[in-house]
Amino acid sequence: MNSTLARAMDKNTALVDEAIEKLLAPTPDLPESLRKSMRYSLFAGGKRLRPTLVLAAAECCGLNPKKALKTAAALEMIHTYSLIHDDLPAMDDDDLRRGKPTNHKVFGEALAILAGDGLLTKAFEAAAENAADLKLNGRASVELIRLIAYGAGAEGMVGGQVADLAAEGASKKISKSAAAKMLEGVHRRKTGALIVASLDAGAVLAGASKSARESLGSYGECIGLAFQIADDVLDVVGDKKKMGKKGSDRDNDKLTYASLYGVDGARAKARAAVEMAHAQLKTFGRKADLLHELADYIIARDK
Amino acid sequence: MNSTLARAMDKNTALVDEAIEKLLAPTPDLPESLRKSMRYSLFAGGKRLRPTLVLAAAECCGLNPKKALKTAAALEMIHTYSLIHDDLPAMDDDDLRRGKPTNHKVFGEALAILAGDGLLTKAFEAAAENAADLKLNGRASVELIRLIAYGAGAEGMVGGQVADLAAEGASKKISKSAAAKMLEGVHRRKTGALIVASLDAGAVLAGASKSARESLGSYGECIGLAFQIADDVLDVVGDKKKMGKKGSDRDNDKLTYASLYGVDGARAKARAAVEMAHAQLKTFGRKADLLHELADYIIARDK
Repeated sequence: MNSTLARAMDKNTALVDEAIEKLLAPTPDLPESLRKSMRYSLFAGGKRLRPTLVLAAAECCGLNPKKALKTAAALEMIHTYSLIHDDLPAMDDDDLRRGKPTNHKVFGEALAILAGDGLLTKAFEAAAENAADLKLNGRASVELIRLIAYGAGAEGMVGGQVADLAAEGASKKISKSAAAKMLEGVHRRKTGALIVASLDAGAVLAGASKSARESLGSYGECIGLAFQIADDVLDVVGDKKKMGKKGSDRDNDKLTYASLYGVDGARAKARAAVEMAHAQLKTFGRKADLLHELADYIIARDK
Repeated sequence: MNSTLARAMDKNTALVDEAIEKLLAPTPDLPESLRKSMRYSLFAGGKRLRPTLVLAAAECCGLNPKKALKTAAALEMIHTYSLIHDDLPAMDDDDLRRGKPTNHKVFGEALAILAGDGLLTKAFEAAAENAADLKLNGRASVELIRLIAYGAGAEGMVGGQVADLAAEGASKKISKSAAAKMLEGVHRRKTGALIVASLDAGAVLAGASKSARESLGSYGECIGLAFQIADDVLDVVGDKKKMGKKGSDRDNDKLTYASLYGVDGARAKARAAVEMAHAQLKTFGRKADLLHELADYIIARDK
């Protein structure tokens, strides 16, 4: 990561962490065990990519990013809940994430499920509060909630996880082009939809035009794709310790961009997607500097 | 159930079911297995109490209840997701609900968790759409989302479930008054909060005054309490088959209103709560007829 980006990410992380702390402050009705479990995964070393996208998109469209912090926190909560639920024994059954025991390993399965449920719900509360703070009109308030729910839900991230589970095994019985289509369908929803929602949420908070929202959405689709390909490549070439998980995709002989196109082919696809991402940002000029750097960073992670 | 109430419930159920069907119509991005799993539990014989409360509250505050159907569906989706997750092996480990196999028994644990996640998320989309349809202003739109998230979330229903799991065992080591306080804390959140949110959502959709919202909220707290007590009593005296579950509360020797006050004592408490509920509706006159009847019905279920 170059130093400008690193500084921006550090600054955003500090601001987002503060917003998360405030949203999860102790209250009489919030069980302390639940609060601990929710905070454990929120502060388990996430890179705050989605919140940074919210803030960068807001800034890109003319809003002071500090005014988008609750929504940035909301997107991180949704991402975190999805990791908690994905790690459960009934799903990917992972004991470690980013080198730390997964939520259910520390708090038990019941509390892990409920911490996920609590984070998902709290995210909508946080986004609604953000809309209230900014005195958004009805149309923008509704659009903010709707787009987050769509990206996170049964047609977005949740649907992508279902498709991912269904793809296991199925990919061996089909042609390469059908497998490629299946893989694209999984990740466009599982990873891409929430990345697109993060950018779109920042844009909506800023009152962006339809065309600005579309450009940011296309940028999001491109970096979402690049992000997933880079993850697949990292899973093959990366140091397992560095990733902090047990390389389970490879162990399960799962359909991935690396298995489908080879490491070099996958890297070329990721580079092409990042080039396409840059192209979407033309109209924003220098305001999009951070988004340009983020796009480059996504495929530089395995260097 | 008297015939007026039965007719109103049947009519509402038909309208709510239609709204749910529309919200869960097939789309290219919604995996069919996920849609099936979500629909299975939504149409597994629920009495549509929470949607009926949304519609009745809306009508009580002067809005045509047909204009509150998406929010009514949203509250049923949240209730249904909570049942799916509560039934999981890591939680209550129930094989049957309302005489039918629970979601994870039919679709497996992974899909059951994801169906719950999808329903919770879809609920916010549905409520946001309702706000858009009614062209609510920013303040009311935000309030609708916020109150639903609060009632469903870590300080509400999810928090209540955590407190419920924590109460198991703990209740044996404390005094009767401490146990009573613990029980109240569990159910005010676990059952009460979503019932209050249902009524408040209907009121907000109708643009109700603060005092009307408060009266309906108090009514909701009272019937929520009565509902839980009646459930506990039913669990002891009711026909297991009629309830369609295996009387697990009793089997686990769990803290319940029946175990704390005895069946007669618990019934007296429920009657007192229903009387209090009626008193909250005074200002609404005849518009609150359905809410009056619902309050009576809640404690008449074990007759």
